[in-house]
Amino acid sequence: MATCRVRFLPADGDERGPREVEVPTGTLLSDAAQEAGVDINMPCGGQGRCGRCAVIVEEGRIRRHSTERLSVDDVAVGYALACQTAVEGDLVVTVPPQEKIERRLDTSKRAGKVELPFPYSVHDQPLRKYVVTLDPPSLQDQTDDWSRLQHELSRRYDLEGVRVSLPVLRDLGPALRDGDWTVTVVVELENLSRPEGPPRLIDVLPGERLESLWAVAMDIGTTSNVVWLVDLISGEVMSQQADYNGQIARGEDVISRIIYASKNENGVAELQGLVVETFNGLLEQAAQQRGISTDEIYKAVVAGNSTMLHLFAGIPPETIRLMPFITVVNQLPPFEAREIGLGINPAASIDCLPGIASYVGADITSGVISSGMCDTEDKLTLFVDVGTNGEMVLGDCSWLIACACSAGPAFEGAGVVDGMRATAGAIEEIWVDRETYETTYRVIGDEGATESPRPRGLCGSGLISLMAEMFIADVIDKSGNVNLELPTDRVREGEHGAEYVVVWGDKTESGNDIVITNVDLDNLMRAKAAIYAGFSILARSVGLTLDAVERVLIGGAFGQYINVENAIQIGMLPDMPYDSFQFLGNTSVRGAYMALISREMRERVEEVGQMMTYLELSADNTFFDEFNAALFLPHTDADKFPSVTRVTG
Amino acid sequence: MATCRVRFLPADGDERGPREVEVPTGTLLSDAAQEAGVDINMPCGGQGRCGRCAVIVEEGRIRRHSTERLSVDDVAVGYALACQTAVEGDLVVTVPPQEKIERRLDTSKRAGKVELPFPYSVHDQPLRKYVVTLDPPSLQDQTDDWSRLQHELSRRYDLEGVRVSLPVLRDLGPALRDGDWTVTVVVELENLSRPEGPPRLIDVLPGERLESLWAVAMDIGTTSNVVWLVDLISGEVMSQQADYNGQIARGEDVISRIIYASKNENGVAELQGLVVETFNGLLEQAAQQRGISTDEIYKAVVAGNSTMLHLFAGIPPETIRLMPFITVVNQLPPFEAREIGLGINPAASIDCLPGIASYVGADITSGVISSGMCDTEDKLTLFVDVGTNGEMVLGDCSWLIACACSAGPAFEGAGVVDGMRATAGAIEEIWVDRETYETTYRVIGDEGATESPRPRGLCGSGLISLMAEMFIADVIDKSGNVNLELPTDRVREGEHGAEYVVVWGDKTESGNDIVITNVDLDNLMRAKAAIYAGFSILARSVGLTLDAVERVLIGGAFGQYINVENAIQIGMLPDMPYDSFQFLGNTSVRGAYMALISREMRERVEEVGQMMTYLELSADNTFFDEFNAALFLPHTDADKFPSVTRVTG
Repeated sequence: MATCRVRFLPADGDERGPREVEVPTGTLLSDAAQEAGVDINMPCGGQGRCGRCAVIVEEGRIRRHSTERLSVDDVAVGYALACQTAVEGDLVVTVPPQEKIERRLDTSKRAGKVELPFPYSVHDQPLRKYVVTLDPPSLQDQTDDWSRLQHELSRRYDLEGVRVSLPVLRDLGPALRDGDWTVTVVVELENLSRPEGPPRLIDVLPGERLESLWAVAMDIGTTSNVVWLVDLISGEVMSQQADYNGQIARGEDVISRIIYASKNENGVAELQGLVVETFNGLLEQAAQQRGISTDEIYKAVVAGNSTMLHLFAGIPPETIRLMPFITVVNQLPPFEAREIGLGINPAASIDCLPGIASYVGADITSGVISSGMCDTEDKLTLFVDVGTNGEMVLGDCSWLIACACSAGPAFEGAGVVDGMRATAGAIEEIWVDRETYETTYRVIGDEGATESPRPRGLCGSGLISLMAEMFIADVIDKSGNVNLELPTDRVREGEHGAEYVVVWGDKTESGNDIVITNVDLDNLMRAKAAIYAGFSILARSVGLTLDAVERVLIGGAFGQYINVENAIQIGMLPDMPYDSFQFLGNTSVRGAYMALISREMRERVEEVGQMMTYLELSADNTFFDEFNAALFLPHTDADKFPSVTRVTG
Repeated sequence: MATCRVRFLPADGDERGPREVEVPTGTLLSDAAQEAGVDINMPCGGQGRCGRCAVIVEEGRIRRHSTERLSVDDVAVGYALACQTAVEGDLVVTVPPQEKIERRLDTSKRAGKVELPFPYSVHDQPLRKYVVTLDPPSLQDQTDDWSRLQHELSRRYDLEGVRVSLPVLRDLGPALRDGDWTVTVVVELENLSRPEGPPRLIDVLPGERLESLWAVAMDIGTTSNVVWLVDLISGEVMSQQADYNGQIARGEDVISRIIYASKNENGVAELQGLVVETFNGLLEQAAQQRGISTDEIYKAVVAGNSTMLHLFAGIPPETIRLMPFITVVNQLPPFEAREIGLGINPAASIDCLPGIASYVGADITSGVISSGMCDTEDKLTLFVDVGTNGEMVLGDCSWLIACACSAGPAFEGAGVVDGMRATAGAIEEIWVDRETYETTYRVIGDEGATESPRPRGLCGSGLISLMAEMFIADVIDKSGNVNLELPTDRVREGEHGAEYVVVWGDKTESGNDIVITNVDLDNLMRAKAAIYAGFSILARSVGLTLDAVERVLIGGAFGQYINVENAIQIGMLPDMPYDSFQFLGNTSVRGAYMALISREMRERVEEVGQMMTYLELSADNTFFDEFNAALFLPHTDADKFPSVTRVTG
């Protein structure tokens, strides 16, 4: 087979030299780059849709499968999408600087007491430390080390049938002798899906080592990963760490990740490695902050959406995205840290919380238990976690029904010309003057910086705010179209049709105007309509209307920054008194933490997993009607939004 | 730190070129060789005792810690023991050809029915295959794959609470879809030490695959490793494979292996890797012979002595050789093949049989159940496995007592000038003419060769035979001393004292006389005395004498070749009618096989492990007296050997 030599030139500022690789003719440029160790972001997972993998082919023959997202001019000067371009001869390729992903993370390092709805009891968590002193062996008593320890655990602590694995046995002999026959054993008494199982020996430490007992709660978000380091003696969270999921460069959303995992030979293993690596960094940081070794962390309880948990466990998630959308497993069996290389004690067990469906995962069951929505009787509650997918649960203490609707990536800043993630430079709140149509806005600043940066674009909460303000100020009509008749040069016919200038170029970071177009507004309209339609269908499926809902609990990092008034104005959230809404932040990691420290919460999360009904919207023939009805500001049925109608007339 | 360059020249005939390595001053030559990838045999484990690691230092400065086993002449021409020599400057070293280990292995490839004392029932073995056909998922039924399978296994086969591990879950989705929702599952219903546990899913195969179900029984001998491939549907042994334990180059006996494991940083892992590699070769051969894949082997039941099982599981065996001789674990927990890299299905469980002490391991409990010694009521039986250690068990169906005595390596051919292993060229049986003192003998031939090879030395059975014949012919007296007064030039004063020429040099392979010396005879005397003393102490400990023994069952590969008459004549075996003795061959692998296919045998091996009493000879103050009394031919108490006294007068 003919081969071609591909030479990758580094971007300006990259200190590493050029890299070269030899590949068969027809190889994708993205694969050649990977082989050469050159990092190219592919947020859409190599589908040719996001345009972020564009490179410049300086010399040589290529074949472009697609040029979507590239202009004719781009193509003329050699731009090509790495994931859509086949190598057909020796090449020289320049890789532009890859966007450093900098977003607003909930990286609060504040440790300490997380408020609990129940009193903490050390006996409620699943780990124990016991000190045992054994009679030393002699020629008269040659009992083997393991039986000797077992007998004593049974005699002194009533522990029967303790299980042990080879790695712990490997350390047993030296530990007993180093401790002069006094050791501290770490035992797990129960875990999820095996509450009644035999106790399991996790570690044997020489001497008396009762001073601490550590575990972690973890949340695997598609975007960000979170670790809470928990002192099981006090029950307190002693360190909180967060970072971006290392898989992001292989796809921004779950669908792109699944595609990446499916189409690359070792895709699943690669994505697993990336997320485990991210967590290992966080675990190391948390351990360092408390001056402990990660080997002293003896358990992890993990929440995350179904795709993230499949990838974390190395299970192919392919069927999640294919009709009829099936997970391989909703409740993973407990496994040991060494099985996936997670950087805590290798014999520590990892308990993943149960999910209920492909798009309602353990992050939602976890969210439900931590939100307290099933604590109060007869208070009909709507729990919602808004992101690329909007997952929502309706119910009270006796029943729960859930669904997920694909809102699309508009709220994540994609599909919008000047959209961006909620990072420094993003406009997160905006006001439109109803007379002059001029704007004022608030920009997310750099951590620790004293001055606001110049705006670079609009993040999700900014877009919701902008849409609402434009609607109230009549810059757009009820269908979301820009009114070109307004007496301001901010409205104009642009390259992509009618648009509104949010910030003039002389005030922006790039020098270009920040605008919003009719196309952008249409994407936003569809996103908010999908979410509201989901609410409606959930309520209708149980014979109710949204009027019956008494409170709305909003989870997820994005949810925290939504302006409720604006979200109601565009008809994304139901029209209820503002104090009916509560923002709960990361409910997923909080639920994992609760399941870690409380037997009752462990039971509850299993109950929630079993009792929650999943409503598949693609199988519901009323969804399309509800969605169409919501493609209007605030809604085709204005009666549903009396507070908005009062303002807009 | 100063470093030295060590250049290893290959031996004549070795086609690989010289190898060079840089090491710190003071490094042992054996470590330098290992780093350079040059293989040097160290049968004594690097203790400087066997002399087999001698190399020739051609140039450069060394420091010899010991020159034991080397003559002054050897040292003068540059010979040095690699394990006892420190590098002190740049060196050039010649490594002599390493002895290819060729011994007599029980490599019978005969497969088929192994006779069983019970009728075989397929329901008695621990594995099952079930075919299940599932309703495919749909938008109306989005049950996850694993729950769907569990429900059907429960509904159709009453299997509740089936456990699964991540690797099996990773294959589940594709298997279900490749099989169009019909799959064959492999389930383990029970194993040793968890007979009542939940069933465990080992594999999921697309479609209907009921045609076969494979497992293996394995014996880990210090010298040889054996695999029996078992068809669990018929219960028959379909392939038998044997090979030398790959650890031999790191120590000939268990003590040398333990020393090697303890004194090298990764010694345990290295020895584990070597034995697993040996087994993987055997498993591959067995699978090839039956035209199957090793992935179709779903279970291994393993027997072996305590040191071998510790090393197989990667557990440091150090305490086995140190007073008071303690194992880390006598009954290993079941573990999965992937945990140690054994080349069968990665999720297959490995059940190791229970041992009872450091020197009475699972090979003996396995031997006891397969010998049938506890099948017959009231027939007092002595079971003995003779090798470097003599392990022996006395009892009947209601009680068992065991001990181990260190016979030393004389019967393995070590500690005897012309001793050798039972391989081609070894004299295995010998006759001394009572008039002329001339000898005739039988030599072990090459497999398949038509002519007997010239003798190269004496193996264990040959030494027993020789000692007995010399005693009967009065070549030696009752203390084992050569009678130099005999009218034959075969007796003479040699370099090591009085000696007897067994074969003249003109008939031997090397051209040198094969002799036996007073020193050799003394070593043999001590070995046979240790074994007989063990028998006596066992009997006495339960208030009996050896007269009460009704039958002697002899296990182990070496046992098979002993001439009973000779062994009685030297007082190694008790004086009983020849038909009281039965040779059982490898009772260890046979017991593992029985435990694999029979529930009753699995229960019995656990019972045996629990009911067998271990007698520690080093804590028994009568052992030394019994040993001294046995340092005589056949014994100081001639009444114990009436049949011998009748011949010798």
